[in-house]
Amino acid sequence: MTVEPPVLLALDLAGTFAFGLNGALTAVRTARLDVVGVVALGMITALGGGVIRDVLIGSIPPATFRDWRYFALAAAGGLIAFALSRRLHRLETPIMVLDAIGLSVFAVIGASKALAFGLGIGPAVLLGMVTGVGGGTIRDTLVQRIPSVLHSDLYAIPALVGAAITVAAVRAGVYSLPAALGAATVCFVIRMLGVHYRLNAPEPPGTSGHRGSPRDDA
Amino acid sequence: MTVEPPVLLALDLAGTFAFGLNGALTAVRTARLDVVGVVALGMITALGGGVIRDVLIGSIPPATFRDWRYFALAAAGGLIAFALSRRLHRLETPIMVLDAIGLSVFAVIGASKALAFGLGIGPAVLLGMVTGVGGGTIRDTLVQRIPSVLHSDLYAIPALVGAAITVAAVRAGVYSLPAALGAATVCFVIRMLGVHYRLNAPEPPGTSGHRGSPRDDA
Amino acid sequence: MTVEPPVLLALDLAGTFAFGLNGALTAVRTARLDVVGVVALGMITALGGGVIRDVLIGSIPPATFRDWRYFALAAAGGLIAFALSRRLHRLETPIMVLDAIGLSVFAVIGASKALAFGLGIGPAVLLGMVTGVGGGTIRDTLVQRIPSVLHSDLYAIPALVGAAITVAAVRAGVYSLPAALGAATVCFVIRMLGVHYRLNAPEPPGTSGHRGSPRDDA
Repeated sequence: MTVEPPVLLALDLAGTFAFGLNGALTAVRTARLDVVGVVALGMITALGGGVIRDVLIGSIPPATFRDWRYFALAAAGGLIAFALSRRLHRLETPIMVLDAIGLSVFAVIGASKALAFGLGIGPAVLLGMVTGVGGGTIRDTLVQRIPSVLHSDLYAIPALVGAAITVAAVRAGVYSLPAALGAATVCFVIRMLGVHYRLNAPEPPGTSGHRGSPRDDA
Repeated sequence: MTVEPPVLLALDLAGTFAFGLNGALTAVRTARLDVVGVVALGMITALGGGVIRDVLIGSIPPATFRDWRYFALAAAGGLIAFALSRRLHRLETPIMVLDAIGLSVFAVIGASKALAFGLGIGPAVLLGMVTGVGGGTIRDTLVQRIPSVLHSDLYAIPALVGAAITVAAVRAGVYSLPAALGAATVCFVIRMLGVHYRLNAPEPPGTSGHRGSPRDDA
Repeated sequence: MTVEPPVLLALDLAGTFAFGLNGALTAVRTARLDVVGVVALGMITALGGGVIRDVLIGSIPPATFRDWRYFALAAAGGLIAFALSRRLHRLETPIMVLDAIGLSVFAVIGASKALAFGLGIGPAVLLGMVTGVGGGTIRDTLVQRIPSVLHSDLYAIPALVGAAITVAAVRAGVYSLPAALGAATVCFVIRMLGVHYRLNAPEPPGTSGHRGSPRDDA
């Protein structure tokens, strides 16, 4: 519906693949699943955020059901993660970078699409974030984990910032490929800083003392 | 779409705030979350039931995406709960009363809106209940708790009764502000009686002996 | 919307009843729930897959909200399971057979309906599977179990095969009652073979050694 430039489309497809890979890998580590479960969770991670967005803005059937490349890339990511699950630990950094690219592009494209379907500023920003974090949230819920977006290193906030810049650019009439890439880059940089410095959003007063992130267990 | 009287709108907004507060507070107690997680769960609790209803009846984008006040009140409830989480225990009774008001108003407005979108009697009653209990169910699922509506003090039943009275009033041609307030009041009273006397819906034969409600742990 | 032959409708209704019974029974065994929770989970199991499909293809309100018989049969299944929960162990085989019938018919009807709403081949196959497994997945998530479709005896694969045969028949112009029953029968047979021989889809390399299915605990 909304025509995104080829560069954004390429990044969107790359993000879909990265989310499929990353989602399936998380699934393999968390729960004992068969190949159907692993690939299904990879695909849900890759496509879930966009499907929620499209259902809420009325873009039916969802975009991922109309372009076979999304399906194919999400499934390919899931299958590769299944096959190589024992070796993928070594690739943790590239996978995490790809995941951050996916988050950034999904947030920008999600916000832009919500505006194109007539939603207001606030809902468009929110739906940009949901596009980025929705798939991983469904995956975590299905494997009985509290969604990592709710408690770990900055994840929702960079998506919110990227979506907000996108919405501001569209409303200011300056949305274009450089603007979109700029918004995605800001999201990406905040996310990488969050990972690198293990930044977290503030916790409720009185609880921060005894907090342990999963990584502290190691 | 359906024009509700100002009193109902005011109660609807009050219910949204109460659900945001209550949902975020439940989240703080159940799981270790950061501010994003707490506010997100407050908003999901406050807005989730209405969003499910609107998706199922085809009111897209959902009403809460078209009126910034719902967003603002849900987020405000979540932020207040986050900031005051250590002191809110003392406010348990008023919060619970506000929650019951939200449940009652959501059930009545949900059923009335479903009828306005052409649904039948049974689905409208069900969607009234879903509007009331849907947000809390999503919240509980995300923080890995069995949704309280499935096992604790009368919660779904008062919502069903309130929705059924609403549907009956609409079909009888006597739906008006007093009828809506009457239906909401019946729901509210049943809910408060359930809380006060710790009433529960019947359990499967043979299991009631060894049941312990969460409150019995104290 | 799509006119299915009476035999398929009868099987669809039988599947709905079986899913309601089976879903409620699973709920009773897994978690301590009251009558509202048990019946709600039975209905969610029976109706959830079709509702997800209808939301994604834009058939709003969902078919199960337009035909009271689905509601009635799903609720009846849930109530019977609640009342007889202690005796239903003895009926495990017939319940499992009914469940497999439901899976098969739902997969065929789901795929056929998705095509009728203009979806492509891949999405139609996927939505056929989702129609079959969606309700049970929501149920398992609500009672805090990893959805059985993700890890246990062949469940998703027979649904995929049945949906794929359906889509092939429609595209080849030979979809008819015998073709639909044939596709459902193939799904049913694969499912029953999976149960009988405890077949599972492959697991990630290196994990199959220490796997224990729930049944091995006995």
